[in-house]
Amino acid sequence: MKVHFLLFAGVTQLDLTGPYEVLARAPGFEIELVAKTAHPVRSDRGLMLVPSTTIALAEACDLLVVPGGPGTDDAILDAEWVEFTRRQAATARYVFGICTGSLLLGAAGLLEGRRSSCHWQAREFLPYFGAITSEDRMCVDGNLYTSGGVTSGIDMALKVVAILCGPAVAQEIQLQIEYDPEPPFPGGTPRTSEAHIVQKCLAATQARRTLREAAVRKAAAALPAQPPRRALCSE
Amino acid sequence: MKVHFLLFAGVTQLDLTGPYEVLARAPGFEIELVAKTAHPVRSDRGLMLVPSTTIALAEACDLLVVPGGPGTDDAILDAEWVEFTRRQAATARYVFGICTGSLLLGAAGLLEGRRSSCHWQAREFLPYFGAITSEDRMCVDGNLYTSGGVTSGIDMALKVVAILCGPAVAQEIQLQIEYDPEPPFPGGTPRTSEAHIVQKCLAATQARRTLREAAVRKAAAALPAQPPRRALCSE
Repeated sequence: MKVHFLLFAGVTQLDLTGPYEVLARAPGFEIELVAKTAHPVRSDRGLMLVPSTTIALAEACDLLVVPGGPGTDDAILDAEWVEFTRRQAATARYVFGICTGSLLLGAAGLLEGRRSSCHWQAREFLPYFGAITSEDRMCVDGNLYTSGGVTSGIDMALKVVAILCGPAVAQEIQLQIEYDPEPPFPGGTPRTSEAHIVQKCLAATQARRTLREAAVRKAAAALPAQPPRRALCSE
Repeated sequence: MKVHFLLFAGVTQLDLTGPYEVLARAPGFEIELVAKTAHPVRSDRGLMLVPSTTIALAEACDLLVVPGGPGTDDAILDAEWVEFTRRQAATARYVFGICTGSLLLGAAGLLEGRRSSCHWQAREFLPYFGAITSEDRMCVDGNLYTSGGVTSGIDMALKVVAILCGPAVAQEIQLQIEYDPEPPFPGGTPRTSEAHIVQKCLAATQARRTLREAAVRKAAAALPAQPPRRALCSE
């Protein structure tokens, strides 16, 4: 099972490192971090990760993992990332979008008419790419697995290991990483967190959300024309 | 708040990257990854992380974070890591041990007579360092915060942000990283996982546990003599 994680500047590192820790423990899974160059890549909060291969050198993979983060806003307008995502997804058995990684899947034309989840602060942008928005922590549509924000990628990776390798393997990994979580507060989603906490988060990201919307509109406009939805449904 | 993460070869990367994601979002927290040299460091499962400073260059910190992983077995016998841990902990306001990072704290003489947690598969070694073993996911003893395995570092980091910055800040970070976990199975600790899963994990690591025990005995023997426990209690 060849697994490729996209590694772009401004990635939210836990979107990548959480599922990495789970998938790297599954028997027979080989992981590559694919970047534009061989140079280390900086996460949105300063962690430097070293890629193991590059867009130019990467071969086909079985599982493509697209993490999210503020860097997605650049990646969805970057022809090299968009084209690579489209190409890798075309031959992968499974495609993951973690957090706002779904937006890059959208920009690659992979969400048209499909159900998708996303970080709660960016779900509103999925319809620009023709996606049917899911509010679930994990959403499955065919071979497309998308999760909510950041930590939900850990849950999704465990669930997919259970599907691909059997529940016992996933349960062993869950025990190895001592994953019996005790979040300190109720919350963690806009439905479960207190309203004033949700408002504070939204206010803090208002400026970025405006920029993101502009980027999403531009990326959606660059998509090749799709056949009308009805035609897809009648297939 | 200056935060130093130790970055040694063979670290379990999620021990580091989980708490990193939380602490890096707390206002005023500045994070450094401290390694022996400026070269990238390989995790136990192949992720390459780039340090931001070195043992020789690192100044004092407010919060010292010691992650775990198979590499701990080498670090506890490495005078450079043991001495650096002791020196940094001496002036830090808080000291974290994540997962088997507690063993390095032990080798630095910081656990004598103190309550400590650890990855469930390595808790049995804490008494070699004079520690009182805790089975809790997070254990607080004075300025010493220790957690269980891997993912418990995320919970602990959120709890400490709540203490240092107030609950609202921790709740905002919990919502930003959408941390309302849905582990796919009950379990994740030897108490909550099914017995056959626990047995399988133990069997898979039997050889490594023997080596670890030898390393722990050697590291404990190298500790400077401590005053008798009774003397400590009567202070």
